[in-house]
Amino acid sequence: MRTQVGIIGAGPAGLLLSHLLHLRGISSVVLERRSREHVEQRVRAGVLEQGTVDTLIAAGVGERLLREGLPHEGIELRYGGAAHRIPFEKLVPDRRITVYGQQEVVRDLIDARLAAGGDLRFEVDDVEVHDLEGAPYVTFGGERLDCEVIAGCDGFHGVSRPSIPEGVLTVFEREYPFAWLGVLARVRPSAEELIYARTDRGFALHSMRSPEVSRFYLQVPPDADLADWPDERVWAELKARLETIPGFTLETGEILEKGVTPMRSFVAEPMQYGRLYLAGDSAHIVPPTGAKGLNLAVADVNNLTEALAAYFATGATDLLDGYSAACLRRVWRAQHFSWWMTTLLHTFDDEDAYGRRLQLSYLDYVTSSAAAATTLAENYVGLS
Amino acid sequence: MRTQVGIIGAGPAGLLLSHLLHLRGISSVVLERRSREHVEQRVRAGVLEQGTVDTLIAAGVGERLLREGLPHEGIELRYGGAAHRIPFEKLVPDRRITVYGQQEVVRDLIDARLAAGGDLRFEVDDVEVHDLEGAPYVTFGGERLDCEVIAGCDGFHGVSRPSIPEGVLTVFEREYPFAWLGVLARVRPSAEELIYARTDRGFALHSMRSPEVSRFYLQVPPDADLADWPDERVWAELKARLETIPGFTLETGEILEKGVTPMRSFVAEPMQYGRLYLAGDSAHIVPPTGAKGLNLAVADVNNLTEALAAYFATGATDLLDGYSAACLRRVWRAQHFSWWMTTLLHTFDDEDAYGRRLQLSYLDYVTSSAAAATTLAENYVGLS
Repeated sequence: MRTQVGIIGAGPAGLLLSHLLHLRGISSVVLERRSREHVEQRVRAGVLEQGTVDTLIAAGVGERLLREGLPHEGIELRYGGAAHRIPFEKLVPDRRITVYGQQEVVRDLIDARLAAGGDLRFEVDDVEVHDLEGAPYVTFGGERLDCEVIAGCDGFHGVSRPSIPEGVLTVFEREYPFAWLGVLARVRPSAEELIYARTDRGFALHSMRSPEVSRFYLQVPPDADLADWPDERVWAELKARLETIPGFTLETGEILEKGVTPMRSFVAEPMQYGRLYLAGDSAHIVPPTGAKGLNLAVADVNNLTEALAAYFATGATDLLDGYSAACLRRVWRAQHFSWWMTTLLHTFDDEDAYGRRLQLSYLDYVTSSAAAATTLAENYVGLS
Repeated sequence: MRTQVGIIGAGPAGLLLSHLLHLRGISSVVLERRSREHVEQRVRAGVLEQGTVDTLIAAGVGERLLREGLPHEGIELRYGGAAHRIPFEKLVPDRRITVYGQQEVVRDLIDARLAAGGDLRFEVDDVEVHDLEGAPYVTFGGERLDCEVIAGCDGFHGVSRPSIPEGVLTVFEREYPFAWLGVLARVRPSAEELIYARTDRGFALHSMRSPEVSRFYLQVPPDADLADWPDERVWAELKARLETIPGFTLETGEILEKGVTPMRSFVAEPMQYGRLYLAGDSAHIVPPTGAKGLNLAVADVNNLTEALAAYFATGATDLLDGYSAACLRRVWRAQHFSWWMTTLLHTFDDEDAYGRRLQLSYLDYVTSSAAAATTLAENYVGLS
């Protein structure tokens, strides 16, 4: 079996790459270890930058997104007993975010790929990549896929990055002394916009997926066990961290799903080796506080699409050679922003009294200076 | 002996307070442990915010400052082999900084106080404050000064703050794992503006005091010994950290003075107890990176002057009661900014590779985003 681009992973990065390549007349095969049902139901991020929305619309997969996505023009920072809105419409006019679950993006992309006759293989076993410096190919479940280029879109735990020989990659990494307990609940959102709440009990995030489904996160210890978080405790803790301003009541409802997300910052450089190109989580991870993971993956895929289109059209390799460098500036900006939002809003057990005051002083500054609020807003909606 | 306000310390805070009170018809006596020559020659900060300049001019002590002070409309951040100017004239129009040594401010204030018949006592021994909750008085060298109010302007190591009973103050503190080696040299500045340089060897600052005198700082270990820093080593290290862009040559000359400045963040709250009010370094210390120490002292003194003027005019105590709260918002903003500039520009021995990349990414952001550059500029020139 032969294709131009072998794509490992059917998350948003791999699926979008496959579809964008298809629109340029470039063939690909997508290989995914998990089932279609699994990837379509995997609850992940839900905040799309304007550039991500523009990409999806231009790729012809924006119809449902435009219909069901919730455009937001601000977020709230809640701390010290008061609510402070960061008004995107004033600070970064003409740019907004759209709340739309990652799994919805995945569904739309799978539908589009299949409608266009795309070759998606789910539940493939034993994926391995070979001969990355020569004539690359992928083996899986006894089959062999020859390709000119391999795209590693298989996430942080995938096989692509570890297939690069030792010594090639430089890894930059940080772990945080907490995790997020994510909760999906059948209840209407208690506020129209996202609420990022800093309390002495820890961070909480009020978000939503639709007018009927809310999404919440709680800062928890890194080794938190779901068994210790029955629904009643989840609601009690959410109330304790969010019902901190007069007149705000948290609506409660049926909890549909709970999960613990580790918080990690990670970058592997360069994002390419021979004929293998990494995109999205396989090359970099950000803590979810800045809502950047999916958006970075889309930016990577846009870069890779342009580079591959030039290569297959003319044989030119300059964009492919410069792929990693082209991605990494944005990656590091997002790394910094995600770290910044995380440290601004979480409590750290080892923080001293001075550090806690610094954090509150910084929050006061971000919510009172137009320049400081703009640094949050322009990163949140996505730097162009 | 009796006065309305007993002022401990003849640094810029105490002298300015005495002069501003005089202009409001309020009497004071200034008590200083060191000699007049010592305080006039003590090399300290040299960057005045616009608000500080305005205060000094309004107080009638701005004549020489206006003649000899060097107005600056920007600073340079130098790192990664390139120079990046933060243009105040674009980012914060109508606000600038003025480079003018703190000891020059002290000289101007002493001249003004003496010309107006002010009572300044230098080289007074054994200063102690008493009966802060009742009828306060100060004893020194066998004498007694009765007053209605005492102003503690005697710096971090002074007697005022430690005179407040244990348990009253909450202290917030941070030490940094480095110090600054400050150098005064008879050589014309090598650039027109201040240069804040981040290098892998550590931080360096190029500054100036006049067209003939330059001021430099080098990040050094916290226990640095001047004996290890002969002039040749100072110049070699300054060159290594500043001659990092094409075409820049550091001018060298006679070194007039060297000293090691510890780097500390410190706040004591509240800034008052009974009839004692703390102003400037006696209540709070910032690392010098943000050039905020002197400017904060002037802001404190402005607040205290207004409060005392109201009190002596009408007996109203509301401004005096709210003195600490009125100062602390600005104090914490400056605390945060000074910490921010310090961590942005210094190297930390315990920093990992991820942290170093974050720092460079942040510098790239500050030098490329107008919003981020404005956060630096508006804090540097002084928030109103």
